Amino acid sequence: MALIVQKYGGSSVGTIDRIRNVARRLIEVKKEGNKIMAVISAMSGVTDKLIGLAHEVMDNPPERELDMLLATGEQQSIALLCMAITDMGYKAMSFTGQQAGVCTYGSHTRGRIHSIEPKRVLEALDNDYIVVCAGFQGVTVDGTIHTLGRGGSDLSAIAMAAAVRADLCQIFTDVDGVYTCDPRVVKDARKISVLSYEEMLEMASSGSKVMQARSVEFAKKFGVVFEVRNSMNNNPGTIVQEETSAMESLAVRGVSIERNQARVTVSGITAPVAYTAIILSALSDAEINVDMIVANTAHDGQARQSFTMNMSDLGAAQAALKKVLPQLGESARLETEAGLAKLSVVGVGMRSHTGVAATVFQSLADAGIATGMIATSEIRISTTVEAGDIEQAARVVHSAFHLDQVNA
Amino acid sequence: MALIVQKYGGSSVGTIDRIRNVARRLIEVKKEGNKIMAVISAMSGVTDKLIGLAHEVMDNPPERELDMLLATGEQQSIALLCMAITDMGYKAMSFTGQQAGVCTYGSHTRGRIHSIEPKRVLEALDNDYIVVCAGFQGVTVDGTIHTLGRGGSDLSAIAMAAAVRADLCQIFTDVDGVYTCDPRVVKDARKISVLSYEEMLEMASSGSKVMQARSVEFAKKFGVVFEVRNSMNNNPGTIVQEETSAMESLAVRGVSIERNQARVTVSGITAPVAYTAIILSALSDAEINVDMIVANTAHDGQARQSFTMNMSDLGAAQAALKKVLPQLGESARLETEAGLAKLSVVGVGMRSHTGVAATVFQSLADAGIATGMIATSEIRISTTVEAGDIEQAARVVHSAFHLDQVNA
Repeated sequence: MALIVQKYGGSSVGTIDRIRNVARRLIEVKKEGNKIMAVISAMSGVTDKLIGLAHEVMDNPPERELDMLLATGEQQSIALLCMAITDMGYKAMSFTGQQAGVCTYGSHTRGRIHSIEPKRVLEALDNDYIVVCAGFQGVTVDGTIHTLGRGGSDLSAIAMAAAVRADLCQIFTDVDGVYTCDPRVVKDARKISVLSYEEMLEMASSGSKVMQARSVEFAKKFGVVFEVRNSMNNNPGTIVQEETSAMESLAVRGVSIERNQARVTVSGITAPVAYTAIILSALSDAEINVDMIVANTAHDGQARQSFTMNMSDLGAAQAALKKVLPQLGESARLETEAGLAKLSVVGVGMRSHTGVAATVFQSLADAGIATGMIATSEIRISTTVEAGDIEQAARVVHSAFHLDQVNA
Repeated sequence: MALIVQKYGGSSVGTIDRIRNVARRLIEVKKEGNKIMAVISAMSGVTDKLIGLAHEVMDNPPERELDMLLATGEQQSIALLCMAITDMGYKAMSFTGQQAGVCTYGSHTRGRIHSIEPKRVLEALDNDYIVVCAGFQGVTVDGTIHTLGRGGSDLSAIAMAAAVRADLCQIFTDVDGVYTCDPRVVKDARKISVLSYEEMLEMASSGSKVMQARSVEFAKKFGVVFEVRNSMNNNPGTIVQEETSAMESLAVRGVSIERNQARVTVSGITAPVAYTAIILSALSDAEINVDMIVANTAHDGQARQSFTMNMSDLGAAQAALKKVLPQLGESARLETEAGLAKLSVVGVGMRSHTGVAATVFQSLADAGIATGMIATSEIRISTTVEAGDIEQAARVVHSAFHLDQVNA
């Protein structure tokens, strides 16, 4: 008998029929003799409808009240799912984030999980109930409702799996798992059967939007083995776990792409020392996530720094940096470039395999694709290319590392 | 500075515009230097929509999950009302039943209030917030969500007013207050400005559906003075409070009518002693509320008992009684009569005024209206009449006690 946590997103519970489908899946697992617990999102569309109502009242609703409002979405779906399970003859019990003991801290609409006290959930599991928890929500120590922000239900599921010491956490989504590259771009991309947390993190941060990085980080921290799989079929998915030596045998595990990138360059910097802090504080105060950072000093003593970010942040970044330009020296100036994309290759094997970077840039050069900024981590190499080149770039790099082959 | 609790029902918060209207009312009270707290229902229609969803899943949804689902209705309306207040420049904070400290017991979908621990609510009031609480809900000691059933939001408001020691509790509804009779039936019915708890209870139990009896009982028990008034205008309403000697000066305060009544008679009872218990247990097991009870023993030693009830319960009552007939003796039989109505006159002055009953039955007889079963309490006289006679009966009795006159 295993204890299994399954997470279902909004589209998996988007209609009463789909809710029944999830009920059947949970019952299957129960019938096999396991303890089973679902963590689910609001029915798709419900959250948007609630946000619409809030905006009908005012433009910038207070976030405490927005959390109060949005938390009702999951509270409805857990009740409906329990009804569907009951209708099929099995015992089910629903839990709001609070009832499941999810204690949060931080800001409203993007709360963070502090701890989970799953006493009541464990009791229900011991008493043979199929347990259904609201994802995406929790309460502070003093009982105020928090939502966890984007990807929060994945995080709820993984944190809950850690708290109840689940044997497996299955994240059901609308794709079969993590692929060597986006199959819409690279036709012969393959599903990866096992990934390390680090690889999953680098894939997530470099554009494979299967899961938010913070959920993967949480799983890594607490050693939660999880599987990403499709709620619409029974195919095995991608298991994400601690790194194994087998993973090291391959230099590259996947290629990920991110579109809608922009670059901002501050050049002619003559201010001493503190300029990086000035620039990064200005961007962080404006809540802009910068991705790649390249810094250099020219021979004339003037420094330049370039950043990439999502295109939608470009305007705000320009505005924020314009304000601090005078502090960076008389000749400091701003240049921007939109219409970029980012290509990344990821693999823990990079640590022991040499020549990965050479292969990436040789294959791109052979295809006549110009590269721009370059950034690397221990297990990732990223480069910007023109937006129009990104699909071809993905294909040539995917092929250069033979990722279409089963042993890859 | 006073502390005022205002309760708004579903139709008062049924649209975003109406929610804004309630926000303005609360702010008015706040501006006058008072502490103000609203207890509100779900937006009208929302609860029905949720029940519809539940029934799409299954015919008899488990009540625990139904409570989980229904409680989201008020959680949405409190958040939206707080947004509207914030939008108008005032501080507002919403509280679910649980957060407001409402502790319940009893059955799901018809929970009862055990106690209220309003610490957080009082803190928010002290910190100058307009407080908005979800009516109709609370949690058990172990954190399970309960809804309070029909009229539950009135009960929430009155219980909350008792817990925070409010100076006044205003129940906003869609009528101006309690009338000497239903104005749709008796054109010259007047609004009653002050009623005692007992009179309000008798009015409620005899058909004036302004409030559920249990809310009035709660107010009486904890000495909560409340006012029933209209959310669509600024007219003063009806204040309900402890009896005063002024109230005693009038024999009758109001006439109330209840339609859709039915009568069941069990006659030919020969079983000894226990028969009343057998009959009432059978009806109570079938969850039938009986209203008037008339018991008699005929000269041949056979007993008969008659009951009135709502017409919709008649079928269930027949079925329940048929089962126990054999225990009541060989000659026991059932008779039923539908198409009845009930007229009641209510007033604490009846205790000291004689001849009230005589006036009631004389005026009905003068109008040629036949009366059926009669039941009395210390401050009420009720009689059944044919459904077709009820409006005329109300008018002649209303007029016989001069209830159309201001000093009445």
